Amino acid sequence: MLTYDLSKRGKTPAYEYIYSCIKNDILNGRIKANEKLPSKRSFALNLGVSLITVVNAYEILMVEGYVVGIEKKGYFVNDIGIVSEKKEEEKEIIEPSEPEEKYLADFSSGHILYDNFPYTIWTRLMRKTLMDREGLFLKSPLHQGVYSLRKNIAEHLSEFRGLKVSPENIVVGAGTEYLYSLIVQLIGRSGMIAVEDPGHVKVSRVYEANGIKVVHIPVDDQGLSLEGLKNSGAKAVHISPSHQFPTGSVMSAKRRHGIIKWASEKGGYIIEDDYDSEFGFLLRPMPTVKELAKDRVIYMNTFSRTLSPSIRIAYMVLPDELMEKYHSKLGFYSSTVSGMEQMALAAFIEEGFYGRHLNRMKNYYRKLHIEITDIIKETLPDKLCRIEGEACGLHFVIRLNTDITDEEFTERLYEKGIKIKPVNDYAHYKREGFKHCFVISYSEINPKIMKKAAEIIFECLLGKEKS
Amino acid sequence: MLTYDLSKRGKTPAYEYIYSCIKNDILNGRIKANEKLPSKRSFALNLGVSLITVVNAYEILMVEGYVVGIEKKGYFVNDIGIVSEKKEEEKEIIEPSEPEEKYLADFSSGHILYDNFPYTIWTRLMRKTLMDREGLFLKSPLHQGVYSLRKNIAEHLSEFRGLKVSPENIVVGAGTEYLYSLIVQLIGRSGMIAVEDPGHVKVSRVYEANGIKVVHIPVDDQGLSLEGLKNSGAKAVHISPSHQFPTGSVMSAKRRHGIIKWASEKGGYIIEDDYDSEFGFLLRPMPTVKELAKDRVIYMNTFSRTLSPSIRIAYMVLPDELMEKYHSKLGFYSSTVSGMEQMALAAFIEEGFYGRHLNRMKNYYRKLHIEITDIIKETLPDKLCRIEGEACGLHFVIRLNTDITDEEFTERLYEKGIKIKPVNDYAHYKREGFKHCFVISYSEINPKIMKKAAEIIFECLLGKEKS
Repeated sequence: MLTYDLSKRGKTPAYEYIYSCIKNDILNGRIKANEKLPSKRSFALNLGVSLITVVNAYEILMVEGYVVGIEKKGYFVNDIGIVSEKKEEEKEIIEPSEPEEKYLADFSSGHILYDNFPYTIWTRLMRKTLMDREGLFLKSPLHQGVYSLRKNIAEHLSEFRGLKVSPENIVVGAGTEYLYSLIVQLIGRSGMIAVEDPGHVKVSRVYEANGIKVVHIPVDDQGLSLEGLKNSGAKAVHISPSHQFPTGSVMSAKRRHGIIKWASEKGGYIIEDDYDSEFGFLLRPMPTVKELAKDRVIYMNTFSRTLSPSIRIAYMVLPDELMEKYHSKLGFYSSTVSGMEQMALAAFIEEGFYGRHLNRMKNYYRKLHIEITDIIKETLPDKLCRIEGEACGLHFVIRLNTDITDEEFTERLYEKGIKIKPVNDYAHYKREGFKHCFVISYSEINPKIMKKAAEIIFECLLGKEKS
Repeated sequence: MLTYDLSKRGKTPAYEYIYSCIKNDILNGRIKANEKLPSKRSFALNLGVSLITVVNAYEILMVEGYVVGIEKKGYFVNDIGIVSEKKEEEKEIIEPSEPEEKYLADFSSGHILYDNFPYTIWTRLMRKTLMDREGLFLKSPLHQGVYSLRKNIAEHLSEFRGLKVSPENIVVGAGTEYLYSLIVQLIGRSGMIAVEDPGHVKVSRVYEANGIKVVHIPVDDQGLSLEGLKNSGAKAVHISPSHQFPTGSVMSAKRRHGIIKWASEKGGYIIEDDYDSEFGFLLRPMPTVKELAKDRVIYMNTFSRTLSPSIRIAYMVLPDELMEKYHSKLGFYSSTVSGMEQMALAAFIEEGFYGRHLNRMKNYYRKLHIEITDIIKETLPDKLCRIEGEACGLHFVIRLNTDITDEEFTERLYEKGIKIKPVNDYAHYKREGFKHCFVISYSEINPKIMKKAAEIIFECLLGKEKS
């Protein structure tokens, strides 16, 4: 079995050290393509590290494409090397996918339930699009997006979000990440863009990959720090005011106006990621920042999350100034979204299916949200566990009163079949104030399992079950 | 009616001057949103310019989004200004599209015939995908692309192009333009990328919008100039060796090897755009450059052209070195192509429909190609007109023996209902050697119309019909 000398790792975290050892061995050819890696449990035993350490190392290797997990078979080295025809033919044809971990509960996954997808209607609309509009659907869609889709998005925003925008200001694209790249092309690569810290790591990675510098601004329970933003020298800021990830905070009205003031004075732009706003349960939903400052805010949202991650359709609403720039600088681009899917989605919204779908999902998750938080409150005494950031959306945070380090607590729970991530895992600068805070993404959890998981969390907190 | 003083334009071409006058008036508010512009013919008369001058000005305004053409109604100023709710409601709901020009022949359009699209099969496969694989299709597809699609692309390339690659090296994306942006992210923004001149203007625009400098290298009948490339200092070069646009030249073997040698010595990369290679008629198709230098060449192609521009699926085959970089630097991205369409396309290739579709199209266009070139040869004497770049693809070039300037010739033909573009229109640096050369994109032309168009070209050449 693979063996690495962990004493050599210095200050590098164990999982990162193991990850880079395996990666180097793959690149050196010491571990060959298609070779099986040791099972996580036996590897952990062999190295004298905890299971979660190996899990984390393998996960990075998979994300980076060096390793492929095959269900019920294990982890294999991906063939990234020199192409041999023979090898190809011999290779088993399988759709590589991560082997499903058999967790009792996985609080780190934000997936929505696939069962909710309206197959029948979608199939019917697709077929109708293909049949009805032969000519239209075969034409190259405008880069900005098919008009009927933009019109329906504008109407949806007005009805569901109280946000009045013109279809002319909407740009449709293949996912929010693609739209971020257009934003960089619009605002230019000089200067910096500010992001929330902690936050979605992907957001800063996309901006950086597109050549603009990123500055991380701390988030508190009111949202992104205005002081931090002012001192950063950034020319644009990316925020998720309706439900921040991972803290769950809803940006206060005062903070919103502060950021708008900053943008107006600086001539800066606010990128408002309205992600999760569809699932506002407890409070009357805050209006968008866009509504308050149309000329400074780029509003964004996506259908990939509410409909299906397979549907790669997102959109942004640009201020007039940027819209003009878009036409003159980027108008030459081709659309990145299939015309057919755009038309099917337009019909889906227009015929009211999207609104009904959202309402159904919202009701489902509202009920689940209450059940899940009730179970936590019943099982875990208030002194030990406080729920935060639960005003909206499909995740919230539990703040634990404990001395156990986040790393150790994560490990203890992992041993009991629970996957959970500390808030500081999403932070560029880890902060004292987020210690003992963990993210609970509950969209795939049912109450029975929550009950069991909460009991395990309780036991681990009391230290009864130290492994 | 709008009136501009053309004497003030200095050296600016008339169409560009008119374009910028109208644009400024729209931005100033002197021409209001939704206002109708004068018809092209009356506007031309009024300004004392040729019709094509106004057509060109309006076309730029439409591309940049300032003006919208509405079929049978005319040209209207787009609403790019401040949003007023009232205006939105009043506005007629129409799918904005360019009003179709009633040309006798349009040699500037490279559209394939929509009639060729296999509706029934595509609809069936879409439905099957939706029905059969409920779980799978709803999952977020890997950024690199759904495995079954990459596998089928690899097999297709092997069978139809003699190119052996591994599915592991294929990256699927929402159109070639999106893939160019990934290439920039892989090779970095420092240094320069070389492109063919004349060439597709879009290619350089996409690279520039993504923050890398572009250097234009002259093309001759053997392809891109090796000398020019060597002196450019570029670190990568974008070529279309199988059928250059617009010259139609097929890159010679010597030039190919020269460029490969350049890449090996410099550590540079070759981006091989294999666009149009599906329609190689006359010669035995040249093998790909990729085949000759797998570690230096990024091979690219798209389904948007062969299937339908509405289907936004392209792919690239990366060298191992870049593939590793892709996994480590860009592996975090989400896919830009709907999982459902990827699966439908995989099935479409796997079940042999794509191969048959290509063969059917190839036969259709081979026959058309012979008919069209025969008519030109019969109608236009060899001394006056030579055909060039016809070894492959859906366009070729006619080189005319005349003293009439390209601009005037274009105008004369336009007056007779023929739209045609000089090769130098696609050039960054206009060249003497391409004077009197015009692009004939024939995919939408039928022989009867070609006959008539060739006669008109003949008359205009002889100057009989000077208007």
